Order: sequence, then structure tokens, then C-alpha cells
Amino acid sequence: MFTRVRMSYQESAPCVAVVGVTGAVGQEFLSVLSDRDFPYRSIKMLASKRSAGKQLSFQDKAYTVEELTEDSFDGVDIALFSAGGSISKKFGPIAVEKGSIVVDNSSAFRMVENVPLVIPEVNPEAMSGIKVGMGKGALIANPNCSTIICLMAATPLHRRAKVTRMVVSTYQAASGAGAAAMEELELQTREVLEGKPPTCKIFSQQYAFNLFSHNAPVLENGYNEEEMKMNDKDVRVTATCIRVPVMRAHAESVNLQFEKPLDEDTARDILKNAPGVVVIDDRASNHFPTPLEVSNKDDVAVGRIRRDVSQDGNHGLDIFVCGDQVRKGAALNAVQIAEMLL
Amino acid sequence: MFTRVRMSYQESAPCVAVVGVTGAVGQEFLSVLSDRDFPYRSIKMLASKRSAGKQLSFQDKAYTVEELTEDSFDGVDIALFSAGGSISKKFGPIAVEKGSIVVDNSSAFRMVENVPLVIPEVNPEAMSGIKVGMGKGALIANPNCSTIICLMAATPLHRRAKVTRMVVSTYQAASGAGAAAMEELELQTREVLEGKPPTCKIFSQQYAFNLFSHNAPVLENGYNEEEMKMNDKDVRVTATCIRVPVMRAHAESVNLQFEKPLDEDTARDILKNAPGVVVIDDRASNHFPTPLEVSNKDDVAVGRIRRDVSQDGNHGLDIFVCGDQVRKGAALNAVQIAEMLL
Repeated sequence: MFTRVRMSYQESAPCVAVVGVTGAVGQEFLSVLSDRDFPYRSIKMLASKRSAGKQLSFQDKAYTVEELTEDSFDGVDIALFSAGGSISKKFGPIAVEKGSIVVDNSSAFRMVENVPLVIPEVNPEAMSGIKVGMGKGALIANPNCSTIICLMAATPLHRRAKVTRMVVSTYQAASGAGAAAMEELELQTREVLEGKPPTCKIFSQQYAFNLFSHNAPVLENGYNEEEMKMNDKDVRVTATCIRVPVMRAHAESVNLQFEKPLDEDTARDILKNAPGVVVIDDRASNHFPTPLEVSNKDDVAVGRIRRDVSQDGNHGLDIFVCGDQVRKGAALNAVQIAEMLL
Repeated sequence: MFTRVRMSYQESAPCVAVVGVTGAVGQEFLSVLSDRDFPYRSIKMLASKRSAGKQLSFQDKAYTVEELTEDSFDGVDIALFSAGGSISKKFGPIAVEKGSIVVDNSSAFRMVENVPLVIPEVNPEAMSGIKVGMGKGALIANPNCSTIICLMAATPLHRRAKVTRMVVSTYQAASGAGAAAMEELELQTREVLEGKPPTCKIFSQQYAFNLFSHNAPVLENGYNEEEMKMNDKDVRVTATCIRVPVMRAHAESVNLQFEKPLDEDTARDILKNAPGVVVIDDRASNHFPTPLEVSNKDDVAVGRIRRDVSQDGNHGLDIFVCGDQVRKGAALNAVQIAEMLL
């Protein structure tokens, strides 16, 4: 299933639409589709009216960005959405109505019954039966980026020893808030270094050389929406989501409690053999995963794998995980889902 | 005990020495001593041979930095040390021999029996009986900066409900590795913004727009020394210590388990009344502690106070803590200890 599909433009291939193509994840959709030689008969570049008319190049061909309208999905087999929740809520069902299979990167459909929430390495079975050519549209949701990155490492361990509780603290990059947030971090950093007051448009406070609790709204229980997205019906999770001044890869400190014993060497072996995971865990040279090292990479990196000294026996582990937010946290996961539709 | 001592230069006041005066913490010692009108008869500025001869100004008076030697402590009542563990190990006992009371900011004596490890708001009783004028020298250790910042918030809750286990993930500033690390972060950031390769002297890898596992040596159990410093004989602790590109204040995500139930409103009230602690916990406006907001401040800020949904009843809380690493994490705590010696 994870073999790359070695073909690109061809007659029998699907018509693809990218919704939100000018955004950080939209641009990454194009680069992942190209890197993985995703087969397509045509590709539609869709965005808001503001971006319509812009020129884009994809696989040495020029494209004009089209305005997203209710008529955009005629003949589209697969629509990759990353233009925010409200756009997904409005245009996702329209696309499905037109027969498109929508892979949506927003939170719009993640909690909707009968919409599979899929990480291909974790639960491919959730979307079984959904295929291009089945004669009808469908919705598939891409999980939240922090969730994807955490579960890439936690799931293989869960399969062996059953995780009963997780305590997660995140170190989240600017990219999670879009391309404009990355630009703001860079601009602010220049301003602070020049002794100027930082420009705060995307975030309400200084981001350069600072960090802050994730900007998602805080719910009545005191958790913010980003943290609640990491919740699970089978595993008890408490998360603290923090935005750090890093460009495009998330890090997460994950404390795991297991039902069955699992020693750290076995855990390391399991992770070494897990698809989409790379282990970087060199204690002697203090080499562990960093956001920079995983940036623009497909694999999620795991390190600092150690027995939790605060738990009895081998019922606890601490791990540190890094993954490219734009890639595996968003665009790559969606394109992997799209590959399974073929 | 926490009232400021409103006096400075005077005949009956102690002779003070600052060891490592040119470092980040050394400089902060001077500014805290001055801010708090610490009484002194004389003050000696001590540093390595390399820095000897440098001119410093303190309370409008010029001082010359002297080389630290075995003779530096004649007549010194209180010696504030922050020049690294090996300097403390060598010169701490010499100072004690000369009758000085040493307040040491390094890890050299933290685990030595009969050396009190003191946070004035937490365990002032540990140094009872040690006073200037008692006719002999003594050693007092300043706890690790992450530990001080964490315990300022955790101890008042522990007193009420007994903490049985803590899961801590840190977001540690450059200052913890000294003034040169702060300069390197700034230099690297300029370089990266100019598209140049970053200068890596203090740390082995890029720090600008990146983060990494704390550079302390990793022990056989997989924890690094910084993490093991947070351990406690009464409370089970697992810590993950991460260096983030922030200048001078640490942040910590702390998950607490309690023996007795403790609801979040009671916890918030306890923290509001805790000495040296300020609560910043405004859910509606998403205003919580940040490193920038606590920089150059004495108080440790606590927020994101919420019932841990992964634990039953009111036996768990999550909190997010920020504190100035150079100030309460080091210099302020040591000067508070010194105030108790008078």
C-alpha cells in the first residue's frame, strides 16, 4: 500500500482539484503530488477570489488559479481541501454532490459520523470501499497535524502494549497557522533584532524569541480546541499545546502509560520497523529528533525513548517526536489517502 | 522573611563577594542586589584571570574585576557563586574554610549531604541556624533553575493535596547555558535570516528557529542530567528537558497527580496566594504566561490551570509555568537566600 505509484499524467488517471492552492499546505500538496508522481489526467488550482488569476507552475506546466465556486467540481475525481474549516463546510458537500472524493485537511468533518478520519499507516481500514470510480462522492478527513505526528509513533506501541493514558506537551511551529504566520515570525524576528516593535497581525502577541499557549479558543473545561483534537475514545489523553518560534515542524514530548509491560529496547525495535517512522536516538552524541532535521522530510522522527522512572516496572515510556507539520502533518497524509483511492 | 531589606552600604553590613561576576547570572546578582537594596560593607567582583582587570559599575561606583584565587575570600561574609561546577568544587570549600557562607548556583553541592538546597518560599527551614556572624563558613546550594520554577508553583499545591507524580516538559531558554549562548542564538538568528550558515560554538547544532533535547549528558537510564536534577525523593517525577529559541525565561508544562482531591478553582486560589507566584489565567482572552512576559520579573507566572481530563475526579491538574531563568531561576533565589543569612 505504501509503494509509490510511479506514474503521473495519464488518460485513465483521476481529475484532481487542489482547494486553497496558494496556502502553505496547498503549495505542499503540489510538491508532494509531484514528488510522489501522483497520477492525474487534469489538475485544477482553486483558491479564493483574491488569488484567482495568479499563475502557478506545476511539473513544468503553467496554471492559472481559478476562483472556487459551486461549479468548480464538475468532473473532479479527487479534491484535496486546505482552505480552512468554513470553506470546507460550504464546498465539501458541494464537491461530494458532484461525485468528488474530498480529502479534507480542516477540522470541519473530523468529528462527523461516517466520515473516516484516516492516517494511512494507522487505520487504512477506516476508508475501505471508498475508491475513485465507485460512482459517488465521499468525504475523508485528515486528522489534526499534532495528532498525526503523535500517533505515528504511539500507534505501533499501542498495538503491542495498549496505551491507557498519554500526557502530551507540544512544541508547535508557525506553519500550523499558515504561510502568513511563518512570514510574521520572520518579519517579527527581523524587527526585534533591529530593536523595533514587532508587527502582530496573525497572533496577538510577540512570537519572535517567545512562545505561547496555542491560539485556538479555550473551552469551558480549560483545554483549548487544539488540545481537545488530540482526545481519543479509547485512550485517556491530556495535552498542552504550545506555539514555539520554529518554522514548519512540530515537536511533542509524549509520556505513555501501558496496560501491558513494554521495555524500551522492544519499543525502539517496534518504532524502527514502523512505516513512516525513523528512530533518532543516539544518547552518546546527544543526537535526537529536532524540527529542523525533519523539515521537508516525510518520516516522523522519534527519540529520547526511555523507561519512565516515575512509573512502576515497564508500564511507562517517555518519547520525543518531531514531524514536518506541512508535510506528514497535512499534505503528505492527504496525498497518501488519495493514493489509496486509486 | 520576604520583606525587602531596605538598606545598602553600611558599616555593620556583610562583606560580599560575587564569583563569576562577568557571566549572565553574575551580572544579574549585581542587579538583584541593587534592586533589593541588599546591605553590604564591601563587594568584591571576582572572575577568571581572563576577565580580571575589567571595569564594572555598581551603584554608581567603579569596581575592577579581580582574579579568583585562594586568597579571594579573606574577610568575605557571603560569597555568591555562579562560575560553573568545577570552580565551585574547587573554591567553595576554600571560601568556607575562610569563614564565608557560600550560596552556590552550580550543581556542585546540590546532592551533597548536609548542604541545604533552598528555595526561600519552599523550604527556608533547611538553612535554619546558618547566619552571618555565627563564626564559621557554610555551603548552601541553589537548586537547578527548572526545578526552582516548577516547585514555586507545585509546592503550594503539594502542601494541600500531596503530589504523588509529576510529568514535566520544559521549554528552556538560552540563558541557562550562559551569556555566550544568548549571544549565539542572536548571532545565528541574524545569519539564518541572511541565508548564511549558522555559527555553532556553544551548541553543536542550529538553535535559531529550532529546538533540541537539552545538551546535558545523557545517563544510562536515558534521562539527561538536567532531567534527573528535577527528581525528588518524595514525589515521582519524569521530565523531558528541551532547549527552545527564547532568550532568558523558561516555560514548563506540568502534569500533576495528587493523593487528595484538589479542584481547579481551589488550586487557582492557592496559587494566587502563594508568595513569589502570579496567576495569569485568562481563558476568554487567551492570555496565559509567556517567557517574554516574565522576563526580568521576580515572580513565577502560572496559568492554564485545569482539571486533567485523563485522570479520575479531581486527582489531576495541568498547569503551565514561566519564570525568568536568570532571575528567580538563579540570581534572585540566591540573593533571597543571602537575605535570610542576615
